[in-house]
Amino acid sequence: MYTNSEIKPRDLSKIEKPAVSVTVLIFSINDGRLEVVLINRVREPFVGFWSLPGDILPIKNDLDEAAKKILFDKTGIKNIYLEQLYTFGDPKRDPRGRVITVAYFALLPYNSVDLSKAPDALHAKWIPVKNLSTNLAFDHKKIIAYGAERLKNKIEYSNIARALLPEKFRLSELQKIHEIILNTKLDKRNFRKRMLSMKLIEPTKDFYRLGNHRPARLYKFSTKKLVTFN
Amino acid sequence: MYTNSEIKPRDLSKIEKPAVSVTVLIFSINDGRLEVVLINRVREPFVGFWSLPGDILPIKNDLDEAAKKILFDKTGIKNIYLEQLYTFGDPKRDPRGRVITVAYFALLPYNSVDLSKAPDALHAKWIPVKNLSTNLAFDHKKIIAYGAERLKNKIEYSNIARALLPEKFRLSELQKIHEIILNTKLDKRNFRKRMLSMKLIEPTKDFYRLGNHRPARLYKFSTKKLVTFN
Repeated sequence: MYTNSEIKPRDLSKIEKPAVSVTVLIFSINDGRLEVVLINRVREPFVGFWSLPGDILPIKNDLDEAAKKILFDKTGIKNIYLEQLYTFGDPKRDPRGRVITVAYFALLPYNSVDLSKAPDALHAKWIPVKNLSTNLAFDHKKIIAYGAERLKNKIEYSNIARALLPEKFRLSELQKIHEIILNTKLDKRNFRKRMLSMKLIEPTKDFYRLGNHRPARLYKFSTKKLVTFN
Repeated sequence: MYTNSEIKPRDLSKIEKPAVSVTVLIFSINDGRLEVVLINRVREPFVGFWSLPGDILPIKNDLDEAAKKILFDKTGIKNIYLEQLYTFGDPKRDPRGRVITVAYFALLPYNSVDLSKAPDALHAKWIPVKNLSTNLAFDHKKIIAYGAERLKNKIEYSNIARALLPEKFRLSELQKIHEIILNTKLDKRNFRKRMLSMKLIEPTKDFYRLGNHRPARLYKFSTKKLVTFN
């Protein structure tokens, strides 16, 4: 037996609600380093600090939609690899009040974007993850560390490197990307064997030629789909 | 140059906010099947439907804290494996209005909990994931499918099975758990080799004896820490 008060739906207009924002980590590899897009804040709190692009979630938008919009506004591109990373909800992460942020991470080839041409690119900049200043806005340093760790784990058991490379690439380019993200040197022969045995990549008929060097075989990923393990 | 209106912090009290809830998937293995704790709803909406345990996030609580509280209220246990799974934010997922839910998933050995003795266990029940009725409340069927998929991926590259087993176990028990979660038969010799080469488990000096059967070596996980790849 239930009383009436138990079966009535809870009135959501009467509860105190947190604000929800969406934050996007945009990673790429440039100059042998993992880089991330940061914005110099023009607004309080943390004015003048570097921060990840993000915005309050519009009440009618889906989370993925909101992340795509932020990504487009800051980089000018659509249709790139984007996945939900983690939701950060420390009650003290925002001095304005309770703000929970759903973080996404995106990967793209460095040359595919010109930040200065993005719709809302003012103050946006690529910054190497290893050179971050100690004082980032909010908990963004923690979010970046979490994202870099996810990338490190995922590159070992997925074809996620695909999002960082052109369609055809040399094995040495792929290895370099793994080395940068894993922050370690890899053995050439073992790396090649592992990539081929995991059926991640396959050789194409094309070669890369540079001057008098021996031409290098170009490879491609076996599937255009991003196959990843959670 | 920025105008004053740009640098003032955004007033969070003036924006329309979604409600945020926390939902917990509690998985275990019983009788050769993956099971999940569900609750029969006594409250509208979806009164009488099965649903995952969950609650509105208290405005002052951390997300992890809120998930732990739900877990304790429904199962009576603390200190078990719990990780954030994914945040579901489809604008139409709750008929009461916009509710974003941060889903967690927990794993435990089946015999470690007596649902009837939990603080708030009324109507809670273990239900096999394969026998779910078509009509679950909200998007909970989708959340359960996502959680089962995460478990399937994670068991291949982590020692997550540890959370489902007693401290010492037979290799056959570990293999059975992998087979149930992966929904496939595994070769005994390859499985053993793989587990040992990944340094996930190590033999103990103890044996399991049953009647006239040949005693079976008991193993343990090499580390008490849950080592997982994101």
